[in-house]
Amino acid sequence: MSNNLVVVGSVAFDHVETPVGIREESLGGSAVYFSYSAGYFTKVKLVGVIGDDFPQHHIEQLKKHGIDTKGLVRKTNGKTFRWRGSYLGNLNEAKTLETHLNVFETFDPDLPEDFRTAEFVFLANIDPELQLKVLEQVRSPKYIVCDTMNLWIDIKRNVLLKLLKKIDLIILNDAEAKQLTGELNLIKAARSIQKLGPKTVVVKKGEHGALLVNENNLFVTPAFPIEKVVDPTGAGDTFAGGMVGYLSKTNDTSFKNLKKAVLYGTVMASFNVENFSMDNLFNLSQEKIENRVKELLENISL
Amino acid sequence: MSNNLVVVGSVAFDHVETPVGIREESLGGSAVYFSYSAGYFTKVKLVGVIGDDFPQHHIEQLKKHGIDTKGLVRKTNGKTFRWRGSYLGNLNEAKTLETHLNVFETFDPDLPEDFRTAEFVFLANIDPELQLKVLEQVRSPKYIVCDTMNLWIDIKRNVLLKLLKKIDLIILNDAEAKQLTGELNLIKAARSIQKLGPKTVVVKKGEHGALLVNENNLFVTPAFPIEKVVDPTGAGDTFAGGMVGYLSKTNDTSFKNLKKAVLYGTVMASFNVENFSMDNLFNLSQEKIENRVKELLENISL
Repeated sequence: MSNNLVVVGSVAFDHVETPVGIREESLGGSAVYFSYSAGYFTKVKLVGVIGDDFPQHHIEQLKKHGIDTKGLVRKTNGKTFRWRGSYLGNLNEAKTLETHLNVFETFDPDLPEDFRTAEFVFLANIDPELQLKVLEQVRSPKYIVCDTMNLWIDIKRNVLLKLLKKIDLIILNDAEAKQLTGELNLIKAARSIQKLGPKTVVVKKGEHGALLVNENNLFVTPAFPIEKVVDPTGAGDTFAGGMVGYLSKTNDTSFKNLKKAVLYGTVMASFNVENFSMDNLFNLSQEKIENRVKELLENISL
Repeated sequence: MSNNLVVVGSVAFDHVETPVGIREESLGGSAVYFSYSAGYFTKVKLVGVIGDDFPQHHIEQLKKHGIDTKGLVRKTNGKTFRWRGSYLGNLNEAKTLETHLNVFETFDPDLPEDFRTAEFVFLANIDPELQLKVLEQVRSPKYIVCDTMNLWIDIKRNVLLKLLKKIDLIILNDAEAKQLTGELNLIKAARSIQKLGPKTVVVKKGEHGALLVNENNLFVTPAFPIEKVVDPTGAGDTFAGGMVGYLSKTNDTSFKNLKKAVLYGTVMASFNVENFSMDNLFNLSQEKIENRVKELLENISL
């Protein structure tokens, strides 16, 4: 086990409306979803920013889960990032209703000294300038993974392209892959992204599963079959947490192990969407995770 | 090999517009796509109706492919069924621009005597009353497979429900599965359809692959990764042809073999969409098919 995974991203409170109901002021943010998910596989060091309103019990819970919160900086002059979104029209895509960046607007990640020796780094969806800044602080990373979003592809493409040259694995969704490359076909899009830097690309397709390209190899898997999606918020970061957490735990980034990591990501995301917020990530067990990976394998094997 | 597969469905000429181009007056129809696809696996007996304008060379080509055209009835008082559709807005779903049923409007399938002993029957998408009528003519079918469409689910639901009680396997697309059951979740939809009769349900999801439920079992597979879709027309019937052709050839409808049959269907459909009309189905080989099944297996295996 490398035991050596740093994640940098957002910490938030979400207000979410889905066909099942409404959840207000629930814990959210890319770095938090990622940490809880990856925490089932490895020790996670979390870097993020919170406001004066962030309850201490959330921090205690993170610690209880084995997550190192030393990099979680509290700004006493503002509130925590808040996001309000709705899945009423489409369970596959959130409609953002409100975004209040609050303290996240001036987020300037500064990694604690013992975070800087991390071997595995996950740069969650934040401004690519900040993602680059994080990389400058990590001394000898072994495997760098990033996410991004439509906003940065749109307004910070050049910085993003600079970042991608340093990335080993990018995990993004189908719409982002198409937007980044201009390719409508996802395989072509993934192949184009490889030419921008990352040897390995994972395209998440929501309920339709994920596509992995690694050098000349290709792997496709359906999503874990879920009968009732309650809240898709954080599914992508939970997927990344399962995938990168597993890679860090096994310290093996071969194609064979990347495929297994995709299955773990798929399974972690499936648990997450079955309940509001990250409720389902609090009480999983190795047994539940392994059983579902086994079930997924049965569902995709001849 | 049961060598004993009858298909009843449409024979048509299509006018298709796709982002790649326009193809006019090309051979189409569910029974024809199915026959060419299934013909790579087993002897196919085709039942359909053509008009006075149907060129003899198309019949010769069907025969050359080993397809028994004895059930292809020529009506000299009308034209062959014509369909005009466009995929310009969405490669996943045809927009029907024109339908001229012509001789297909009074299609009244009457199976030749030696077709009536068929063990495998594929009822392509025609009026469920006609599908029932075909079943009355088949003496001791071993495995009955059907397709349907939104129109029949809408206006002939009761007849369709009567038919489904006699069906072993239904192959339909995601929209049809949702419409038939009112379930938005495809697994729930497939499970609901099982309760209507068919022990086995295959839900086709276009570029996102297919879902198979058989008794309590479940299998999901992505589509074969295609870099350029030229014309999706007939993909569903080509899938069905590969799947049912393989089942008929192997004379084995166990869950294990149904899964393999889904892969053959997936691969046959992938060849079909790479070219206009059924151009790609004319010159395949066992080797090409097996190689692609092998490649698909590699892409979905750990």
